[in-house]
Amino acid sequence: MQRLLILLVAFISSNSILAQSVQQKVKQYRQANEIAIINRYKEFLSIPNVSRDTPNIKRNAAYISATMTRLGIKAELLEGITPGVTPAVYGKITVPGAKQTIAFYAHYDGQPVNPKQWASGLLPFQPVFLSDPVERGGKIVELPANAVSIDPHWRLSGRGSADDKAGVMTILNAYEALLLSKVALNNNIIFFFEGEEEIGSIHIAEIFEKNKQKLQADVWIIADGPRHVSGKKMVQFGVRGDINMSLTVYGPKRPLHSGNYGNWAPNPARMLVELLAGMKDNDGKVIIKGFYDDVVPLSASEKNAIASIPNIEETLKKELGIVAPEGNGKSFLELLHQPTLNINGILSANVGELASNIIPVKAEAMLDLRLVLGNDVSRQVQKVINHIESKGYHVLDHEPTDEERLKYGRLIKITTGSGYNAQRTPMDLPIAQNIIKAVQSTVDYPVISLPSAGGSLPLIVFEQKLNAKVITVPVVNYDNNQHAENENVLIGFLWEGMETMAALMMMKQ
Amino acid sequence: MQRLLILLVAFISSNSILAQSVQQKVKQYRQANEIAIINRYKEFLSIPNVSRDTPNIKRNAAYISATMTRLGIKAELLEGITPGVTPAVYGKITVPGAKQTIAFYAHYDGQPVNPKQWASGLLPFQPVFLSDPVERGGKIVELPANAVSIDPHWRLSGRGSADDKAGVMTILNAYEALLLSKVALNNNIIFFFEGEEEIGSIHIAEIFEKNKQKLQADVWIIADGPRHVSGKKMVQFGVRGDINMSLTVYGPKRPLHSGNYGNWAPNPARMLVELLAGMKDNDGKVIIKGFYDDVVPLSASEKNAIASIPNIEETLKKELGIVAPEGNGKSFLELLHQPTLNINGILSANVGELASNIIPVKAEAMLDLRLVLGNDVSRQVQKVINHIESKGYHVLDHEPTDEERLKYGRLIKITTGSGYNAQRTPMDLPIAQNIIKAVQSTVDYPVISLPSAGGSLPLIVFEQKLNAKVITVPVVNYDNNQHAENENVLIGFLWEGMETMAALMMMKQ
Repeated sequence: MQRLLILLVAFISSNSILAQSVQQKVKQYRQANEIAIINRYKEFLSIPNVSRDTPNIKRNAAYISATMTRLGIKAELLEGITPGVTPAVYGKITVPGAKQTIAFYAHYDGQPVNPKQWASGLLPFQPVFLSDPVERGGKIVELPANAVSIDPHWRLSGRGSADDKAGVMTILNAYEALLLSKVALNNNIIFFFEGEEEIGSIHIAEIFEKNKQKLQADVWIIADGPRHVSGKKMVQFGVRGDINMSLTVYGPKRPLHSGNYGNWAPNPARMLVELLAGMKDNDGKVIIKGFYDDVVPLSASEKNAIASIPNIEETLKKELGIVAPEGNGKSFLELLHQPTLNINGILSANVGELASNIIPVKAEAMLDLRLVLGNDVSRQVQKVINHIESKGYHVLDHEPTDEERLKYGRLIKITTGSGYNAQRTPMDLPIAQNIIKAVQSTVDYPVISLPSAGGSLPLIVFEQKLNAKVITVPVVNYDNNQHAENENVLIGFLWEGMETMAALMMMKQ
Repeated sequence: MQRLLILLVAFISSNSILAQSVQQKVKQYRQANEIAIINRYKEFLSIPNVSRDTPNIKRNAAYISATMTRLGIKAELLEGITPGVTPAVYGKITVPGAKQTIAFYAHYDGQPVNPKQWASGLLPFQPVFLSDPVERGGKIVELPANAVSIDPHWRLSGRGSADDKAGVMTILNAYEALLLSKVALNNNIIFFFEGEEEIGSIHIAEIFEKNKQKLQADVWIIADGPRHVSGKKMVQFGVRGDINMSLTVYGPKRPLHSGNYGNWAPNPARMLVELLAGMKDNDGKVIIKGFYDDVVPLSASEKNAIASIPNIEETLKKELGIVAPEGNGKSFLELLHQPTLNINGILSANVGELASNIIPVKAEAMLDLRLVLGNDVSRQVQKVINHIESKGYHVLDHEPTDEERLKYGRLIKITTGSGYNAQRTPMDLPIAQNIIKAVQSTVDYPVISLPSAGGSLPLIVFEQKLNAKVITVPVVNYDNNQHAENENVLIGFLWEGMETMAALMMMKQ
């Protein structure tokens, strides 16, 4: 702990004149161009980017390519082996004499949207400024016609505004700032923007496989996910893995009057709640056999790093209206380094005004399983399936036939999305330490080092296919409603993100 | 049992020449007018009748009034005490010298509809003919332009086609058949058609209260609910009571990324499944304290009646695709004479394509509680609330405030619809026996006598407000998708229902 403090003091005092000067230039460039930068970002956010919406996804790729071309970066669409794969947008700047290559990753696709769930006046693909998050009483605000700067406490709304067009935006604007400020680059730089992250990066492995040579780098910087809840800048050395499981339990073939059949006909909603409830104890601990067995424990330096991170639980509890977190008293960060089984959603028939007095025909749930180092995606899914089978269910991959209905008392359809394992880069590597130094050079408080984020990215594929070191440097505010309605980004964090990315581009060896 | 058989043989042989002749006349009238009768019924079904849709509900009442006027019945809209109450349509035929008054009840309102859930080509308020139920491969069929009759195995689709415009239709057409066949009536007849049954008959008590004198009758015949699954005609002596409870459990104030907060933030879907799962055991038995305590056991004659009813469980299981009914081996009819706690629907965030990797902000469920003789609606609801409180929930009747969120670890909003208790008329009453005889006079197999239906009607209010005897004589097919999508009525049962209602109008003392 003391060693860590000494190191941090050393980092802060080592902010070289050169680094300060680069930061200064990036800041000055941004201050002179805030309105133009934000207008371009609003234009980018106005292109719908739901991963499966291929025509619009292509418009996003074209927009990024055009931006890169404007900056003199030769943009290329990297395809996979399967025909028609959503391309990644790629570019490389080769600097004569540079001794290392830094690759920058962000993704331009976003999660599905349900515009009805967004607050009044907000639409997923019509970005507007907010004085604050709507959940905290924020209102839509207008930029005066003659404005030359934007309140950094304002937010910009829209799907992807935080997750993860903010990554694309800060990387390209950092490069633009260096370019137009005539800063001499010292590293080769690779730009790589993916378009299928929110559907599990289903083709990134084949894009890597096909373009292995182009993608060799000393380190990959992942600009995705939120900064620490304390608002401090952070470097993350790993991510959880992820996979979705969709469950459908079947009741009678047709909806039944709850009076004429109630107590006799099996109710699939009851069956599903029983099944789901039996997967966890009261504290939210998963009680599926062997669920935690494969977990690789944290190393001593990872434990130390976690211990030195400011505790934000009380802030979170107050902001989110939570009195009793799950996890039986374990710390927030301890819990983020464990696998999860989350109910993303559940549906059977109707509730509220639309509800009828019936026994529904089916009940559905979507589960999200996060994985940590040691877990394997297939093994983890199989544990859940084994648990379900142990409760007397016959597992199908299709709607039940009449024959199957009459053969098995409990039928469940289970389908899984494509998933991937967790990834963790050792914090002790020299290049990892250099990244911490670069981020540290932009702020005067100790940056946070986190062994693994709670969120997921298919970073394991970078290791497997490119033999790459991968480290995440998030740029956006934590309260961004990522994946949900009213997604937003804090303007000030976009500016700071540009400075972070510029510092990383100028990283020393 | 033997006594019952002897009685039944006696009934069958007692079919008097007169009764046969009345039946014959009703049948002949119908056969000569099938197309006109059905076209009028389609017109009636085309008027949307969701209970809360007041403008359309009024159109239904006007349509019924116009039909009654055409038949020479002075139609009157009976209002309650509260201004603006949906009126019941009323009429009375007084027959000189008649010694008893038979009142006929049906309701013209229907359950809410979600047109998206209906099969292709079917819409709730655009009735079409079906060769069979859609769930059994039925197709839409067209009546030839020159048709003079309709295949009695066909069905007519539409909300209310079975529940319960079929009641209104068979009562008024039975009367029309008697009238136009010039049959001399022997009883005073009251017509009473309600418009708020599907929202719990919330004002029927005050309509009764205000119109007590007009509504005095020796017996009330309730034409609602399905005939026996065997297809046989049935007389029911009671109904279960009913009340809905809407539950909403709260999680974080805003939707959270399931990776960045998973394992720590309480998931309301998990909380709700745990809560609901804890209300029943594996067999579907309610394990809420005292849930079955108030139940009045069946009398000896009620038990005998139940024992003599054909067992239809194997038919039902095959048709509905059910292998393992709930109820721990108890018979279908035993279970229908017990209180229920049914999950009508459940919803949290989204499933399927719309699902996101989030921790939802809330989870909702709609419960349906059926009550039997001895249960009280307030006591039954209170047992469920007590159970929920015993699980550590703080119960609200509103969305939680920020203060409440920070005070209580588990918050639930509970609202209840208006409900009512069960009702059961003793089967041994002379008028009860006369009703069985009248229905028996229309068929050559023993009609079924059922102590209580599984379904609900506020028949207790008839007892309480009018001091009336109430007996239910259902007319429609059991597989009618009542309360759900693809509701339909079997044409042949409409014809038989007319004959039943005519026989009851001509019932002997």
